[in-house]
Amino acid sequence: MNAQRDSKLPFLAVLMAGGGGTRLWPLSRPDQPKQFLPLISGRSLFQLTVARLREILPPEDIFVISNSRLIPMIRASSVGLPEENLLCEPSPRNTAPAVAYALAVLRTRFPEFVMACLPSDHYIAESKRFITLVQCARTLAGKGYLVTLGIEPTGPTTGYGYVEQGERLDSIDGLSAFRVKHFKEKPTAEEAQAMIARGGFHWNSGMFFWRSDVLEEEFRTQQPGISKALDRMAGLLARKGDDRLLKEIWESMPVLSLDYGILEASNRVAVLPARDLGWTDIGSWDALVELYQAHPELQGKAPEGVRDVGSQSITVIRKTDSHRVLATVGLHDVIIVETDDAILICQRGKSQDVRKIAGMK
Amino acid sequence: MNAQRDSKLPFLAVLMAGGGGTRLWPLSRPDQPKQFLPLISGRSLFQLTVARLREILPPEDIFVISNSRLIPMIRASSVGLPEENLLCEPSPRNTAPAVAYALAVLRTRFPEFVMACLPSDHYIAESKRFITLVQCARTLAGKGYLVTLGIEPTGPTTGYGYVEQGERLDSIDGLSAFRVKHFKEKPTAEEAQAMIARGGFHWNSGMFFWRSDVLEEEFRTQQPGISKALDRMAGLLARKGDDRLLKEIWESMPVLSLDYGILEASNRVAVLPARDLGWTDIGSWDALVELYQAHPELQGKAPEGVRDVGSQSITVIRKTDSHRVLATVGLHDVIIVETDDAILICQRGKSQDVRKIAGMK
Repeated sequence: MNAQRDSKLPFLAVLMAGGGGTRLWPLSRPDQPKQFLPLISGRSLFQLTVARLREILPPEDIFVISNSRLIPMIRASSVGLPEENLLCEPSPRNTAPAVAYALAVLRTRFPEFVMACLPSDHYIAESKRFITLVQCARTLAGKGYLVTLGIEPTGPTTGYGYVEQGERLDSIDGLSAFRVKHFKEKPTAEEAQAMIARGGFHWNSGMFFWRSDVLEEEFRTQQPGISKALDRMAGLLARKGDDRLLKEIWESMPVLSLDYGILEASNRVAVLPARDLGWTDIGSWDALVELYQAHPELQGKAPEGVRDVGSQSITVIRKTDSHRVLATVGLHDVIIVETDDAILICQRGKSQDVRKIAGMK
Repeated sequence: MNAQRDSKLPFLAVLMAGGGGTRLWPLSRPDQPKQFLPLISGRSLFQLTVARLREILPPEDIFVISNSRLIPMIRASSVGLPEENLLCEPSPRNTAPAVAYALAVLRTRFPEFVMACLPSDHYIAESKRFITLVQCARTLAGKGYLVTLGIEPTGPTTGYGYVEQGERLDSIDGLSAFRVKHFKEKPTAEEAQAMIARGGFHWNSGMFFWRSDVLEEEFRTQQPGISKALDRMAGLLARKGDDRLLKEIWESMPVLSLDYGILEASNRVAVLPARDLGWTDIGSWDALVELYQAHPELQGKAPEGVRDVGSQSITVIRKTDSHRVLATVGLHDVIIVETDDAILICQRGKSQDVRKIAGMK
């Protein structure tokens, strides 16, 4: 374990914004992923993620890693980040190469720093609580831990990975952090129930914090290929080398997630339990509809042209220029999503099957 | 009771085709009522009604009474009826004035006749059986009865009027006809159950047969105003008078149904029970979907652009030029009807509420 270097190291955030996904089809498409949809009071999860961080970080210290298809959407989001903070991956290679690339870019600007690596497609209702946790995680990261925020499970969900906590490592401002004993990929229903029953498990939020030198050391020992590529990319960027070479280095790295490639085998991963965040990754229409039903103001204005007789618990989302009438009669627990080129009618509780629809021809 | 005049009187059919209605909204509209929709293997109920009668009648003996908005649709149906057989009501005044007008027109061409007065928006699966019953009803009408075909109830439906049979009046080719003791308008659920439990009740099909002189006598005694108007219209038509005057006479008649204005108080109404017709008036989406589920070949080719995961017992009807994807996930017992300007999503068993949707702004 490295000793605490300096709690005054620069603190930078890197937002992962390259994900595609079709779980909110027909609204989400490969070219219009969830993080850019105006789902929350007309704002996107990406916009809200930046806004949360802006409470503690200037725009110059917030970076985004995405791809050439999506960078125009980031610009259109008008979140005010400098153009040079928008990092473009040459092609999708999962999170380990993406983070290595981000490290290479940031290394050219800062000798050492604490980095938050955050998804941009989660919803967090309690921003103040989030900031408190981020400050705590930053301090822990400064001490040399690879910190993951652990979401308190609300049930035996099979849709998330889990982390199992071990002994208590530290306590900061009354918040305890624990060693991570074990990462568990998306479990079966039985496994999930067993974990919830035993306790001491958290959902893996994908929100990570670490010191740049600590993560680089992990790359060196666990993923020497990526580590070498990281050094080469940093050198290339320092001398403003061409994109063709960057692409070549990029493609030399394995397609690998950071969880699987680094965190699972590291012995300095700490989980910081993150209670009361009001967190959801909105991983399905059911999740979004649950959020809207709990907080109707988030849905924004009611869709137009909808007529109903006798339905109960239906949610209609219309993102279409069409002035067609949409009429519902006697339905129960149904989600209807309409775009210009598709309409989805989904029974609540079944929205995990929407991705199958998206893949059909 | 008039004696039987002559079973060789001309036999003419008058089809009622002026009805509007929105029970099959969004497919049926005031300008495109149910009888002209291509619901049955791509053919309309109106086309099928004419085709059934063509088994026993030449086109010259089949008349249609409708209105100026719908007569173009009758022409477009290409059923081959002579132009002069398309009678146009000046405005909607229900069935008693419509039949009086038809009588006036036909009187200018035939001194006396037996007339079948039939809806054009019912489906009858068993055409041969229908013809047998029509021949029998024609014979009964020739004897001076006002004959109504009584549909054998399949359950205590509240959507139809009922007729109660009295003593047996006659028997023709093994088919018995009974005096009608009582007409019962659309009943409550309790009344319907009581009628079904007692037996001897039939649904009022609206398919009527009578001799022209018998009906004219009923008009004279029960509806002298309409009777006078009938005589004036006949005179006007004989001397080829102008439409302005016809309209004036037309509007002098009360808005009245034949059932209420003539049949309920007449003592010579006979019901001919019509079993095994495969009859339905397709009075709702539920009725149409039941028919399609029993006889899938009637629905015609499957709608395009539909994707489903895990739904059960859903029916999709698409009459739209749109190439939108229509996706269903996990639905049960749902009817979906899509047109260019509307989409209906209706739980099965609730389609009686569709007319409320049609009336909403």
